[in-house]
Amino acid sequence: MSLTRVHNFAVSLDGFGTGDVQSLAAPFGHAGERLHEWMFGTRWWKGAGSGGGVDDAFVRQHDPGIGAEIMGAGKYGFPGWHEDPEWKGHWGPNPPFHTPVYVMTHHTRPSIEMEGGTTFHFIDGTPAEILEAARAAAGGEDVRLGGGATTIRDFVKAGLVDYMHIVVVPIMLGRGVRLWDGLEGIDADYAIESISAPSGVTHVTFTRAKD
Amino acid sequence: MSLTRVHNFAVSLDGFGTGDVQSLAAPFGHAGERLHEWMFGTRWWKGAGSGGGVDDAFVRQHDPGIGAEIMGAGKYGFPGWHEDPEWKGHWGPNPPFHTPVYVMTHHTRPSIEMEGGTTFHFIDGTPAEILEAARAAAGGEDVRLGGGATTIRDFVKAGLVDYMHIVVVPIMLGRGVRLWDGLEGIDADYAIESISAPSGVTHVTFTRAKD
Ligand SMILES: NC(=O)c1ccc[n+]([C@@H]2O[C@H](COP(=O)([O-])OP(=O)(O)OC[C@H]3O[C@@H](n4cnc5c(N)ncnc54)[C@H](OP(=O)(O)O)[C@@H]3O)[C@@H](O)[C@H]2O)c1
Ligand SMILES: NC(=O)c1ccc[n+]([C@@H]2O[C@H](COP(=O)([O-])OP(=O)(O)OC[C@H]3O[C@@H](n4cnc5c(N)ncnc54)[C@H](OP(=O)(O)O)[C@@H]3O)[C@@H](O)[C@H]2O)c1
Repeated sequence: MSLTRVHNFAVSLDGFGTGDVQSLAAPFGHAGERLHEWMFGTRWWKGAGSGGGVDDAFVRQHDPGIGAEIMGAGKYGFPGWHEDPEWKGHWGPNPPFHTPVYVMTHHTRPSIEMEGGTTFHFIDGTPAEILEAARAAAGGEDVRLGGGATTIRDFVKAGLVDYMHIVVVPIMLGRGVRLWDGLEGIDADYAIESISAPSGVTHVTFTRAKD
Repeated sequence: MSLTRVHNFAVSLDGFGTGDVQSLAAPFGHAGERLHEWMFGTRWWKGAGSGGGVDDAFVRQHDPGIGAEIMGAGKYGFPGWHEDPEWKGHWGPNPPFHTPVYVMTHHTRPSIEMEGGTTFHFIDGTPAEILEAARAAAGGEDVRLGGGATTIRDFVKAGLVDYMHIVVVPIMLGRGVRLWDGLEGIDADYAIESISAPSGVTHVTFTRAKD
């Protein structure tokens, strides 16, 4: 069975998945790189092969078993990206996805084939419709929900997320886009575990309780 | 030196320190007792003497070295409490404070002496003024900031909190009073540690970096 999974999504202690104001020069606004420093410290990030502690154990789940990604327009671009016909995302010619990527946007455009197996498809629709398209492209494998916060929130609210790995980073952003908004009662649908890492972050996992 | 300390303050994963709607029958609104079940599981709560794991280690810090408490009117009462001249708090004749307690309120009334060393004083003023009064009454010991969320937030914003122990409970309340609001950048003033407990909660401590 193909699952919908979230991996390595970082929020501040006060629950923001990105800072203010997002721009081309500062995709995370005033958060800068602070939400991801824990990841830069992993052996995985440094390309050091297997091994490592709890941060590595989690970060390495990002790719295996994934056949497609869904991301929001806010992750793909920056405010105004759709006015640039040449914009191909933040990740250079060989993006780290290596699968079809469904970019949810009201500004659709023709698909873009990149190096390394990544193809960006631009899609408008309900979360359920977009998931159906990504799942068909995933060839029986799982679909990763890549963020940002708005996208994850919408899919969780629609009951479409099977697994969610959130990384709580001990910084206080105060403003930006909140992940935890309007999710009252979702703890009834998931087994939730938390584990603090020596790096200072806390990994929180939501695993859907299947019936 | 007398410090200002917060202990055992529980918030949901999405950052709410109490639910909606607060009332006499439901002081925590729709949160019910879910924010405090971790505490009811401790040996300390059950009166079992010393021992226990990480939850016990934290919960036992609540009383030692404390000479006075400050609490908000929302913790002391319920919406409308000030219309009841007989209201003496939620804790019966012998409240678990055993020190002077400064209740911040715009509806001040004469002090009430309870059994066991607790005296409720009703006080209106700035956080700094109220802390000064409590500190004078604490006889050189520390002042505990008892909550709720509004009170803690206001004192943190005013730079008056030296130590803060927050317990993140894996429930999603969705509404209530947020603790994490307008606290951008306070991580620069504190050493922050997180540790997850087998009970499922995560203890987060803020210890002021003294200069
Ligand atoms: N914390 C992390 O680990 C992490 C991970 C990934 C990204 N991020 C950051 O998160 C930020 C982006 O997050 P965000 O919450 O602002 O935005 P987002 O979730 O990436 O994207 C939201 C946007 O996607 C489009 N969209 C959403 N649902 C749609 C639908 N059903 N149909 C068509 N279009 C739809 C809309 O854009 P349009 O109407 O403009 O098309 C909407 O404004 C960026 O700063 C990014 O760097 C953080
Ligand atoms: N999560 C936990 O561990 C925990 C711990 C303790 C309590 N609680 C819960 O938290 C809730 C109360 O929290 P809350 O945030 O709603 O309220 P609160 O912080 O207890 O009290 C806020 C109220 O105190 C008064 N006040 C605040 N600052 C003042 C000042 N400078 N001068 C004079 N009066 C001032 C105002 O009331 P008036 O204007 O009406 O006087 C204000 O509305 C309750 O449900 C309680 O059970 C939770």
